[in-house]
Amino acid sequence: MQLGFVGLGRMGGNMALRLTVGSPDGKVKGGHAVVGFAKDPNPDLVGVEAVTIVDTLDAMVAALVPPRAVWVMVPAGTATESVITELAKLLQPGDMVIDGGNSFYKDSIRRAEGLQSREMGFLDIGTSGGIWGREIGYCMMAGGDPRYIAQLKPILDTLAPAGGWAHVGPSGAGHFVKMIHNGVEYGLMEAYGEGFEILYKSQFGLNIHQIAQLWNRGSVVRSWLLELGEAALARENSLQSIQPWVEDSGEGRWTVAAAIEEGVPSPVIAASLFARFASRDPYNFSARFAAALRNEFGGHAVKKVEEPKIQSDGSTQ
Amino acid sequence: MQLGFVGLGRMGGNMALRLTVGSPDGKVKGGHAVVGFAKDPNPDLVGVEAVTIVDTLDAMVAALVPPRAVWVMVPAGTATESVITELAKLLQPGDMVIDGGNSFYKDSIRRAEGLQSREMGFLDIGTSGGIWGREIGYCMMAGGDPRYIAQLKPILDTLAPAGGWAHVGPSGAGHFVKMIHNGVEYGLMEAYGEGFEILYKSQFGLNIHQIAQLWNRGSVVRSWLLELGEAALARENSLQSIQPWVEDSGEGRWTVAAAIEEGVPSPVIAASLFARFASRDPYNFSARFAAALRNEFGGHAVKKVEEPKIQSDGSTQ
Repeated sequence: MQLGFVGLGRMGGNMALRLTVGSPDGKVKGGHAVVGFAKDPNPDLVGVEAVTIVDTLDAMVAALVPPRAVWVMVPAGTATESVITELAKLLQPGDMVIDGGNSFYKDSIRRAEGLQSREMGFLDIGTSGGIWGREIGYCMMAGGDPRYIAQLKPILDTLAPAGGWAHVGPSGAGHFVKMIHNGVEYGLMEAYGEGFEILYKSQFGLNIHQIAQLWNRGSVVRSWLLELGEAALARENSLQSIQPWVEDSGEGRWTVAAAIEEGVPSPVIAASLFARFASRDPYNFSARFAAALRNEFGGHAVKKVEEPKIQSDGSTQ
Repeated sequence: MQLGFVGLGRMGGNMALRLTVGSPDGKVKGGHAVVGFAKDPNPDLVGVEAVTIVDTLDAMVAALVPPRAVWVMVPAGTATESVITELAKLLQPGDMVIDGGNSFYKDSIRRAEGLQSREMGFLDIGTSGGIWGREIGYCMMAGGDPRYIAQLKPILDTLAPAGGWAHVGPSGAGHFVKMIHNGVEYGLMEAYGEGFEILYKSQFGLNIHQIAQLWNRGSVVRSWLLELGEAALARENSLQSIQPWVEDSGEGRWTVAAAIEEGVPSPVIAASLFARFASRDPYNFSARFAAALRNEFGGHAVKKVEEPKIQSDGSTQ
């Protein structure tokens, strides 16, 4: 079928390639047509016959045959909000918008209601798979009206591996499930990280790449994340060229907020989120405060900062 | 080759079958001979030609041709200690003992030294794979003298899947790596558990078996543990027949102790260990204490225990 696509970067560009020319190994055939709007499209898309790149949303909408389906794959937050607001003005009743990004599920519920009031469809489809998705397929968690899911089925069948997409519930449910997926991912990553650090610093002089490789062959902790970890450790066993700075893009925070709303104890996911915060602030205030108190009550020496990194706004980064 | 085996229960029995008759699918041929000492051997071993069951350690040692190798697969702690102590008396210089259980690595270092002083070998081989190992193979992390590793190679090659065993370091290193493997496993299990609980209690009426199934098909969190979780949720989506009681068998505690010895922050592994403790004590004292304090300072009502469960020794279980 024909699909509009907004955002053809690293993730969206690979999705458009899988939809049109198929997977690199040729096992998935593609065969769909994409009309893409992107400021800086993935270079691999240039010259692909089934991909039309346009430079305005108007032009994209004009090039699509009703009922239109437009997949939005741009960063969550203001970028997604402005694209969907603009599309709501340009599309017609019966058309639909798909948000494949990592939007906050409550925003997706609101957007679905807004589009529904204009008789347009909205699907929130949490999409996992990263840069490997073009080859392996994307795992997709879809929320929204079953009517629009049915309409989009040919696209979902091409993007996903076998059994790799599902309609999980009403509007918001798709992004909710993807949000929890990412929260779990934080916990898994931190658990592996802690284990490898204890191994790395042990008395035994262990080769942690060897251990990651071994654990991926028949052990209980084998996983796709551990395969990625094995590949990273193969390149550099000590990871010394990588700063211990871990970004977060919201889903971990929202997972902990959801746990709090539901009253579900989630110490591991919360601790993994906080570990990311800590990774970005080696001069954290709480450690300073503890050091100051040890000095106050016990006269324990504090280590002085040689060159203070405190900014005029009080931040330490 | 010929191998002595002490402990032929669920785990050891399957290992002996893989070593002698091979894997159930016939892909691994077996071909070794096992002389096993077990009080209550796995019934599948009865009638297997290459397995000789004896009822004393003396008889086992007598039936083995020097240099002997005896694999010990009994619970860590006193059972392992007494078997190895006994074997040290019965074996001769040049023989070796393999501890395939989950012994504490410092015990393994001590046992290696003890056997070395009698000119006997000792290998600590952490073994992962659970009840699926007979088919898939066991992931094995071996510590000890390379000479004895080389001697045992035919056995390790049969037990492990391709690339699934490695000599990770000196005595103790095998059990140390297996201990951290299990500590990581605690963190992974708790991260998945928290995620599924938040999904289960959400407003969306989600089918968590469907989600586990979906996540195993192309998502970033796919893993062997999640496949097991998918199977458990397929049988019972709410898990209501399973008590929320999670046992621990030591490795998580030792992992946290190792993290403390090395000064490695391990909030996720520690939290997952403590979550297991909490699972076994719904009447925990710290929650009682917090409820009592809220009552003291704010007059907030406490829920009274209808039938106190406190034992004469002060415990609440």
